[in-house]
Amino acid sequence: MSDKTVKLLNPHLETARSDYLYHLDINVANTRDTSELQNRFGDVRVICMGGTGSRMRQLALHLRHILVVPESGDPVDLCERGNRYAMYKVGPVLCVSHGIGSSSFSVVLHELIKLLKYARCQDPVLLRIGTCGGLGVPPGTVVATKNAFNGLLRNEHEIAILGQRVVRPAQFSEDVIRDIIAFGVDANDGFQTISANTMGTDCFYEGQGRTDGAICEYSEKDKMEFLQKCHDLGIRNIEMEASMFASVTQKVGVKAGDVCVTLIDRLKGDQVTITIDQKHEFEQRPFFVVGRYIKRLLQQ
Amino acid sequence: MSDKTVKLLNPHLETARSDYLYHLDINVANTRDTSELQNRFGDVRVICMGGTGSRMRQLALHLRHILVVPESGDPVDLCERGNRYAMYKVGPVLCVSHGIGSSSFSVVLHELIKLLKYARCQDPVLLRIGTCGGLGVPPGTVVATKNAFNGLLRNEHEIAILGQRVVRPAQFSEDVIRDIIAFGVDANDGFQTISANTMGTDCFYEGQGRTDGAICEYSEKDKMEFLQKCHDLGIRNIEMEASMFASVTQKVGVKAGDVCVTLIDRLKGDQVTITIDQKHEFEQRPFFVVGRYIKRLLQQ
Repeated sequence: MSDKTVKLLNPHLETARSDYLYHLDINVANTRDTSELQNRFGDVRVICMGGTGSRMRQLALHLRHILVVPESGDPVDLCERGNRYAMYKVGPVLCVSHGIGSSSFSVVLHELIKLLKYARCQDPVLLRIGTCGGLGVPPGTVVATKNAFNGLLRNEHEIAILGQRVVRPAQFSEDVIRDIIAFGVDANDGFQTISANTMGTDCFYEGQGRTDGAICEYSEKDKMEFLQKCHDLGIRNIEMEASMFASVTQKVGVKAGDVCVTLIDRLKGDQVTITIDQKHEFEQRPFFVVGRYIKRLLQQ
Repeated sequence: MSDKTVKLLNPHLETARSDYLYHLDINVANTRDTSELQNRFGDVRVICMGGTGSRMRQLALHLRHILVVPESGDPVDLCERGNRYAMYKVGPVLCVSHGIGSSSFSVVLHELIKLLKYARCQDPVLLRIGTCGGLGVPPGTVVATKNAFNGLLRNEHEIAILGQRVVRPAQFSEDVIRDIIAFGVDANDGFQTISANTMGTDCFYEGQGRTDGAICEYSEKDKMEFLQKCHDLGIRNIEMEASMFASVTQKVGVKAGDVCVTLIDRLKGDQVTITIDQKHEFEQRPFFVVGRYIKRLLQQ
C-alpha cells in the first residue's frame, strides 16, 4: 500500500519529542510513538468543520444516521476540556467547530492537520460546511467553492509571516469539487447546488461591503459596484474562511472542499430577513450534500 | 447633562427603519423608538469581552461579587438563541464572548457598538480580557495594551474594504490605560501588571513566528530575530485581536482597553507548558485588575 498519510511542511516537528495541540487539548506525549492517537483517530477519512459546536453536533447525528454508524446516546465532545473548539467522532468522520473567521479557523486547522499526521490517517479530506451570503443566487442555494478570493478580490490568501506579507494560492481540490457535485446532489433536493468562486473576508461588515455596520464610509452605489465586480469574477457566495482554508490545505497538499448555503442575496440587500425556521432548514442542506458525498467516498 | 452617547460612523443607519443585530439575535424593530432596548441595556457603562463564553460567565460571577450586585442563580446567556456569542449582564456591565481572532471579534464588536447606540448608553468603556503569549516577561504577567501593532509590525490595522487596502491607526484610550494601572493594581497581587505595546496577528502559528504549526518555512534563528524586533518595539505580548479592536473603537470614538495575561514567554519557547491549574489561576488575574478598575469607574 502506498503511503497516503499527511506530510507536514515543517522540518522543526521532525525533531520535536512531544507536541501539545493546545486548543484541542490533545497531548502528543511522544512523537516517535503515536500508537495511542493512531488507535483513537487512525481510521479518520474525513474532517467536517463548521462555525458552531451545536451545528457540528447536529451534523454528527445526521452522519451517524446516514452512514449507519452503530452508536447511540449523546455525541461526546472530545475537546471539551480545551474549551475552545468542539469535536465529535462518528466512525471515520470528525465533526469539529472552527468559530467565525479565518483567524479562529486557522488555529484549529493547523492542529487538526498535525493530528492527521500523528494518527497516520490515510488520504484524508477536509470539508468546511457553513452559511454565507449569496451573490445573484436565491437564498438557500448550496455553493461548493472552486477558487477562493480574498477581500482584495484576488484568488489568493495573504498572511503576515515574520513581519512580511506572504501570498499563497487558494484553490480547492478539483476532484473533491467534482465528486461533491456528482455524488452530493439529488434531483429531488428542491434546492440548487452549484460550484462557483467564493470570497472569504476578514470582516463581516466593511469587508463584505455591507452598509449596516457600526462604520460605513462608502455609498450604496460604491457597494453595488463592488458586489457587481465580485459577481463578474464568478463569485457567487461570500463568507469569512475560504481563502485561508484553501491556501493552507493546498500548501500542505491535503484534499479539501468548502460547501456553504447562502442565507441572503447580497445583490438585493444586507439584512438577513429569512425566518429562524427557514434558517434552520437551510443549514441542513449542506449536511445532505456533504453526507451523500462522504457516504460514496467511504464506499470507494 | 452633555450627550455622551455613542455616535456611529455610518450615515446609512440614520435612515434604516429597523436593524437586526444578527449574531447577537437582538432585533431593533423600530430604530426611531428604542425605549425597550434603553430599558434593558441603557444602564450599561462597561462591556467586557473575552474569548470563551465560559470565561465570560466566570467573569460575570466575579463582578457580581465585587460590585455587590444583588443577583443570584445562574447567569443567563442573553444571546443564547443567536448561537454564536454569549452575553451576560451584571448590573451596568455586559460580559460578552468574542471567539478567537479579529475576524470573529469584529463581527460582535460592530453589533455591540450599535447596541450601545440604540440603548443610548452614556460614555461606555469597552474592555477585552484575554490570554496571550508574552515577550520577555514572566508567564502570569498582566499587560494593558498601549499601542497595538499588526503582524506587519506596524502600529495600525489593515482591512480590505470594497477590494482596497484601508489602513487605520490603532491606539487605545490613554485615560483608560492610566486608570487601569492606577486603580486595577493591588500591591499584594503577587503578579506584575504593566502597560506596554501588543501585537495582534491573524494567525496563531506562522503569524506569531511559532515553529510548531503544520507549516513553518523559517528557521529558529529567523524566528528569534523577529521576536527580538517585536521586543525592540516595546511589544510585551502577542495575541490575535488588539490591532482590530483598537482601530475600530478609535475610529468610532469609544473608549477601550485590552488587558491580557501572558501564559508563556515566547523568548523561551513556543509550546505552552504551564499546568491546567496554573492556567486557571492566571486567567483570573485580569478579572481582578479589571474588576477593581470597573468598581472605581462606577463610583465616579
